[in-house]
Amino acid sequence: MVARAVAAPAPLAIGLDVGGTKIASGLVDREGNVVARHEVPTPTGSEQEVVEALDAAVTALIDGRVAALGYGIPANIDRRTRRILRATNLPLDDFDLVKHAAQAFGLPVGVENDANVAALAESRLGAGRGASTMVMLTLGTGVGGGIVFDGRLYRGWAEIGHVVVLAGGPSCQGHCHGHGHLEALASGTAADRIARELYGPDADAHFLLARAREGDAAALERFTEMSGYLGAAIGSFVNLFDPDLVVVGGGFGEAAADLLLAPVQEAARREALGPVDETLRVAPAELGNEAGLVGAGLVAFEVLDEAS
Amino acid sequence: MVARAVAAPAPLAIGLDVGGTKIASGLVDREGNVVARHEVPTPTGSEQEVVEALDAAVTALIDGRVAALGYGIPANIDRRTRRILRATNLPLDDFDLVKHAAQAFGLPVGVENDANVAALAESRLGAGRGASTMVMLTLGTGVGGGIVFDGRLYRGWAEIGHVVVLAGGPSCQGHCHGHGHLEALASGTAADRIARELYGPDADAHFLLARAREGDAAALERFTEMSGYLGAAIGSFVNLFDPDLVVVGGGFGEAAADLLLAPVQEAARREALGPVDETLRVAPAELGNEAGLVGAGLVAFEVLDEAS
Repeated sequence: MVARAVAAPAPLAIGLDVGGTKIASGLVDREGNVVARHEVPTPTGSEQEVVEALDAAVTALIDGRVAALGYGIPANIDRRTRRILRATNLPLDDFDLVKHAAQAFGLPVGVENDANVAALAESRLGAGRGASTMVMLTLGTGVGGGIVFDGRLYRGWAEIGHVVVLAGGPSCQGHCHGHGHLEALASGTAADRIARELYGPDADAHFLLARAREGDAAALERFTEMSGYLGAAIGSFVNLFDPDLVVVGGGFGEAAADLLLAPVQEAARREALGPVDETLRVAPAELGNEAGLVGAGLVAFEVLDEAS
Repeated sequence: MVARAVAAPAPLAIGLDVGGTKIASGLVDREGNVVARHEVPTPTGSEQEVVEALDAAVTALIDGRVAALGYGIPANIDRRTRRILRATNLPLDDFDLVKHAAQAFGLPVGVENDANVAALAESRLGAGRGASTMVMLTLGTGVGGGIVFDGRLYRGWAEIGHVVVLAGGPSCQGHCHGHGHLEALASGTAADRIARELYGPDADAHFLLARAREGDAAALERFTEMSGYLGAAIGSFVNLFDPDLVVVGGGFGEAAADLLLAPVQEAARREALGPVDETLRVAPAELGNEAGLVGAGLVAFEVLDEAS
């Protein structure tokens, strides 16, 4: 007698996109479809409050189909232990979320830097579909990013915003004491600073963008300068990783795509070694805010597959 | 009846360190011991001459114990096909050495960039013993290097000398059209240029080193400057890869270690994100010229293990 297997329902994952203002969670399938969603404000008080909110965000969605949990966190994650070392805008410094969530829910757990998670999503489902190696830059308040090598997310820091592109240049803000890092030269924060320099204390990145689109020479010059720094950093990444594609996303990156991407690609080709110097593509991200949630789900499936 | 296995002799590999002036080959065991050696000058004429010399360097050492071949080549290697794209000082552009050698000798073949190969050797047997992730810089005429992630050699370009550390800075020489790359700012060639600037057309890197050791202020200032650029690049690598250790080797790197390594470590810590900013170690390479030969043998074993 032949035993007939009953097909198990395809497993789902819960992906959590954890930000300083909200926690978005979703039930995600292997193809990155979000079949249910949940969103709550991020508590600002203590570690305990945040952890309780994270657990509630899982509990709101969990059912028997859920096989793994994935978290995208704005933090440095220890490469080996997966412990959160230092989080940005969240009281989760030095916290072992993998251990906590595995004990609380009895499932495999992945914890990743939020920009890494977005890079994974873009590589599988967004601008990087078909590319086996991809570098993604997310230009927002700061500059983050991630690296996908041969289809797999690089699990190291990938603090792409903190490469030096202008030794001795302007200093970073916050906990970084470096100088001339990409984040200090080409980001939403850098654009805010430039806007204030050019147009006074009330101007910001949006104002700078509007002036550049009107053809204001000073604004355009500063976008050319930012494009040069972004191109320098991307040229460095190309010479290190030989990616098929470089994807630029993030709030500022998307808002300024029309002004930045073509000159960034040109500048990056100048810095890239041949034969990539003629073929390198710099493309806009496609998934927008959705990348965090979907990518966290994909990280959960990666951990599930490693565990089985 | 229990079958008794006869222990096969441990396999050996032939590693070839292929340079512009000589081809060094060696019979290497898994532990990196070199049990036999061979060396011939590199022909300078045609691709065919070089390939014949490479084959002869294998034939001189091959016996029944040899299970794989590994080549370290001063070249860009295509990440996927392993084809040599562009070689430095060798007529091997656009040549499929893996295919050629596999057909000629019927063995698994690894072909790697020479600096990557040296990084693998340092990580297993040299300064990087015990470190799971290591970045190595080889400072010679140019700047090369390699990255070992979690014990395995990163097989991409890792053109570490061509990261931009000073956007808009001095241009590279040869086939690179970039500006402000590490190689143009801190290498044997850069030191030669600085020596000529300071002391006239006959001065070179050795003279600059001698003057700095005598306490010459101008020479020391330029070493401080080079240390800053090296520290900037290393800070970038640390923020990307979170290595346990950064190793500096190469002819110029070894000759100038006493002047460079301490200030380089200090500068790199300034650019590194915490908590590595307090713990980062920059150490001298230990294997010297031997790294190329031994590393090529280790690459052969990596390919052998992947094939089986």
